[in-house]
Amino acid sequence: MPTYTAPVKDIQFVLHDVLNVSNSDVPGYSDMEADFTNAVLEEAGKLTGEVLAPLNVVGDHEGCRLENGVVYTPTGFKAAFEQVKEGGWTGLDMPEQYGGQELPYVLSTAVGEMFSSSNQAFTMYQGLTHGAAAAILAHGTDEQKDKWLPKMVSCEWTGTMNLTEPHCGTDLGLMRTKAEPQDNGSYKISGQKIFISAGDHDMADNIVHLVLAKVPGGPEGIKGVSLFIVPKFIVDDEGNIGARNGVSVGNIEKKMGIHGNSTCVLNYDEAEGYLLGDLNKGMRAMFTMMNEARLGVGMQGLAAAEVAYQNAVDYAKDRLQGRAVTGVENPNGPADPLIVHPDIRRSLMDQKSFSEGARAFILWGAQMIDAAHRKNDKDADGLVSLLTPVIKGFLTDEGYDMTVKAQQIYGGHGYIEEHGMSQFTRDARIAMIYEGANGVQALDLVGRKLAQDGGKHVMAFFDIVKNFCKDNAEDEGLKDFIVPLKAASKDLQAAGMYFMQTGMKNPNDALSGSNDFMHLFGHVCLGLMWAQMAKAANAALAGGASDTAFYETKLTTGRYYMARRLPATGMHLARIQTGGDTVMALAAENF
Amino acid sequence: MPTYTAPVKDIQFVLHDVLNVSNSDVPGYSDMEADFTNAVLEEAGKLTGEVLAPLNVVGDHEGCRLENGVVYTPTGFKAAFEQVKEGGWTGLDMPEQYGGQELPYVLSTAVGEMFSSSNQAFTMYQGLTHGAAAAILAHGTDEQKDKWLPKMVSCEWTGTMNLTEPHCGTDLGLMRTKAEPQDNGSYKISGQKIFISAGDHDMADNIVHLVLAKVPGGPEGIKGVSLFIVPKFIVDDEGNIGARNGVSVGNIEKKMGIHGNSTCVLNYDEAEGYLLGDLNKGMRAMFTMMNEARLGVGMQGLAAAEVAYQNAVDYAKDRLQGRAVTGVENPNGPADPLIVHPDIRRSLMDQKSFSEGARAFILWGAQMIDAAHRKNDKDADGLVSLLTPVIKGFLTDEGYDMTVKAQQIYGGHGYIEEHGMSQFTRDARIAMIYEGANGVQALDLVGRKLAQDGGKHVMAFFDIVKNFCKDNAEDEGLKDFIVPLKAASKDLQAAGMYFMQTGMKNPNDALSGSNDFMHLFGHVCLGLMWAQMAKAANAALAGGASDTAFYETKLTTGRYYMARRLPATGMHLARIQTGGDTVMALAAENF
Repeated sequence: MPTYTAPVKDIQFVLHDVLNVSNSDVPGYSDMEADFTNAVLEEAGKLTGEVLAPLNVVGDHEGCRLENGVVYTPTGFKAAFEQVKEGGWTGLDMPEQYGGQELPYVLSTAVGEMFSSSNQAFTMYQGLTHGAAAAILAHGTDEQKDKWLPKMVSCEWTGTMNLTEPHCGTDLGLMRTKAEPQDNGSYKISGQKIFISAGDHDMADNIVHLVLAKVPGGPEGIKGVSLFIVPKFIVDDEGNIGARNGVSVGNIEKKMGIHGNSTCVLNYDEAEGYLLGDLNKGMRAMFTMMNEARLGVGMQGLAAAEVAYQNAVDYAKDRLQGRAVTGVENPNGPADPLIVHPDIRRSLMDQKSFSEGARAFILWGAQMIDAAHRKNDKDADGLVSLLTPVIKGFLTDEGYDMTVKAQQIYGGHGYIEEHGMSQFTRDARIAMIYEGANGVQALDLVGRKLAQDGGKHVMAFFDIVKNFCKDNAEDEGLKDFIVPLKAASKDLQAAGMYFMQTGMKNPNDALSGSNDFMHLFGHVCLGLMWAQMAKAANAALAGGASDTAFYETKLTTGRYYMARRLPATGMHLARIQTGGDTVMALAAENF
Repeated sequence: MPTYTAPVKDIQFVLHDVLNVSNSDVPGYSDMEADFTNAVLEEAGKLTGEVLAPLNVVGDHEGCRLENGVVYTPTGFKAAFEQVKEGGWTGLDMPEQYGGQELPYVLSTAVGEMFSSSNQAFTMYQGLTHGAAAAILAHGTDEQKDKWLPKMVSCEWTGTMNLTEPHCGTDLGLMRTKAEPQDNGSYKISGQKIFISAGDHDMADNIVHLVLAKVPGGPEGIKGVSLFIVPKFIVDDEGNIGARNGVSVGNIEKKMGIHGNSTCVLNYDEAEGYLLGDLNKGMRAMFTMMNEARLGVGMQGLAAAEVAYQNAVDYAKDRLQGRAVTGVENPNGPADPLIVHPDIRRSLMDQKSFSEGARAFILWGAQMIDAAHRKNDKDADGLVSLLTPVIKGFLTDEGYDMTVKAQQIYGGHGYIEEHGMSQFTRDARIAMIYEGANGVQALDLVGRKLAQDGGKHVMAFFDIVKNFCKDNAEDEGLKDFIVPLKAASKDLQAAGMYFMQTGMKNPNDALSGSNDFMHLFGHVCLGLMWAQMAKAANAALAGGASDTAFYETKLTTGRYYMARRLPATGMHLARIQTGGDTVMALAAENF
């Protein structure tokens, strides 16, 4: 059975040595002293390692079941969910007014990584609730907030997001679900929604569905979509749960992974719903929290890679197979451990350097989201908006690949379900799809974010890289980082330039390279993170830090990333610069 | 439900336009006129598309079950297996003497692709039988051949290969299964074997296990391993089936995919066995057919990519979502089909250009195997030995990635099991692991094959590339192919040179780049294949071929590969040239 140990020290390193959070002027950050964040992370580490991780394979094997209209979660989920609620883990960054702890998003993101690593399917129940609550918080009336939020922040009631219908996912303008206005100001919602994560279950007294639907007679397409609160059970003005609403579970989908989460087909049959936000502004309301939601999915890519890596390392140290090519290393055993073999190390270093780089990238993004929300920092908001599709798309593509690499280290034992390595890849696969498939992320990046506000944000990103390289040009201890970072950044700029020159004339030339650009950008971001982490590690060592092995390992791991992963930028650039000719040449019938 | 249409025309193109098989002097090749191969392929296409493909999801959903020691295959497998046997598909390339059709291996490989595309798990029952029969053919006494082969060629009896034990897979020298010699010349086999594909089932009257075991008192490690024939039921001298032998099924493994194949734990308890080949030469006997076996697994990578691609194309043409960025293309529909979007095309072109290139590569390899076996061509044998780890490792890594890309085109519908796209990725995953995990392939390539016979074979490969480029240097119609092929080949030579210079001093420098080298080599091979296919397509067009769209599509697809996939070689070279320093730097405890 796989295990999970929360990487508290690595997270602390990013929060304090790299991002220096407690010295930030973002409101609430000054409370995040190292002792405090350490206590929170240690506690979360205990809960996730001891309670949630052991339930991960249980959820995979049992799945959820639908019996007589009732959805049952796997054995142990309910009790664990109670423990999570009691610990106050469900509303870490939610306002105190509604029962939350109002901690910075950067800290709740760090905790979120642990939850997701230990049990992605389980964590989605509270994750979806958080998303729905955030939408109500942003767009609800005071009455709506008072009515729904306290119970959702505590996860006594959970939430869902209802967008997809059988014939439309990405293109929600095609939506058919209807909302008929009633005399009392409410709406009757009818239609079918599919792929609804945490759509129904037995762990909460009520479920608050946020549903996109069209009010008849409204504008065509996406401009006629509104957002509604549709509870599973009607709630009266005093907050008492009443009659069952007109929403039922049609089916639980059989999926490749995340079996522990009930992915439902939900049928709405004149269900009572309440408009959330403005009429016909449903997409805006649903997507207000898009940066956080997508960053959260990018984080799942990291989380899966991290836990898979941990288990792969254990196996590589433990499994005896073959002898080191440079001479026996385990003379008392019948063979050497796998970890002596260069190709095993190559794989483990790919994984390790990815996870640690991705973690820094995500927490930097979360810090910018805090700056945007807590001190209305427009530059931070613009930059994180630019980077959001990279965080989501690149980190989930790569995160998935890393789980495949971790699984490979187990050989045949990775293919059978007994060791849990297959589950990590099967679970990680969904993160490339939901919350905007990665092709849509790449389109968002190249088609929209790159030129946003006159290209101001991408210029700001290049300035960060340029200034870091300039400020540290003389630092011999960073030479292995600055040189490759500069080269990679130059590739990124060349790609951006290519898009500017050709994209206007023929958008297909730019969009044919969108996936490559997202990956090129991702590598530059992780290169920047590693350069910053190396600087922090050097500083800690120069400052006499006692745990020299920890900081030296950071430097070694970072050097690996710069030397072995960053060369990918040249390949992506070369592909981008071939434009759309070969991509678009074939007529559809010749595929 | 996914569908499969055998790519008969594409296979015919490789066999006749590219490899020109019927003009070859390899014995048996002159019979392979286009009409004949077309008839065989059409017939196989019908069987695989209509009978085997519909059973693929059935096998995945039902899996195999063990009840009271008896293994049951999924519904429909038994009847389909009868149909396969009756059609004579199980012994295409086996000697007529034993009931086979003695067709060239290149043709049985082409048919094998269809079988594997339509139903990988099902096809493995005959695939393992073929492997076991080939070993008996190569190493058995006349008596053994007469006793076992006719029934195995017809698949009345099936076969298995028993190598892995719980504590050893790659490192078989650690094996514990024992073979005690008996007075009558037979052996008593005792021990546990795991991951035995097609290990037991209800589709054959007997199962012939080939089992590696150690005779007590023999040499240590791998040098003391012998190979034994151990039937499920004892067979008397007249060929009658007698008592049950001492082999039983301990368990059927729960796996990520290929659920339709019974992967068994087999317990041998003083089972009667017969030495196959020489004492203590078991590894040699087991691996005589290694090139074919590994080529066959590389073919599974192609086969999975091909069927996944076919379904992805259908979905991309059918699913309406969004509008083309350059203007509406389906004005009468509510949206345009997915295939108008550049990033969808990029993915489909990746898949298409891979599958067609891989097919040419595999059939070229099979042709060399025929030359080696049928006319004792040592050069062909050496070259295909060099390329075998590339065929196995590169094509299964890439083949898996392609199934992931195909799945991605379905969005959320690819993640649920309903459409069968998840199965293609789950099934394809095993090919990266079995028959020597891909890390072992890379090690075999760099550590062994590259320098074999003084580097003669890799020089022969470079000569093929060089001569093709030289002979066609003036051909304007091949410019898009020759230029990138030259550049990629230069990267490969530089990598080989790096290994020669550093590998002697520090093998870790070479082995740290083994995976990259395997992929670099693979891209050059597919680049060469595309260049040859382009030449053949140009020739067909110049010769007035009627189906111009077919040949022009080949040229367009090939140009895509050269422009968009070959630039990977530069990245792999850059990684290789960083050597082993960053890979080997961390102490094991710092992972």
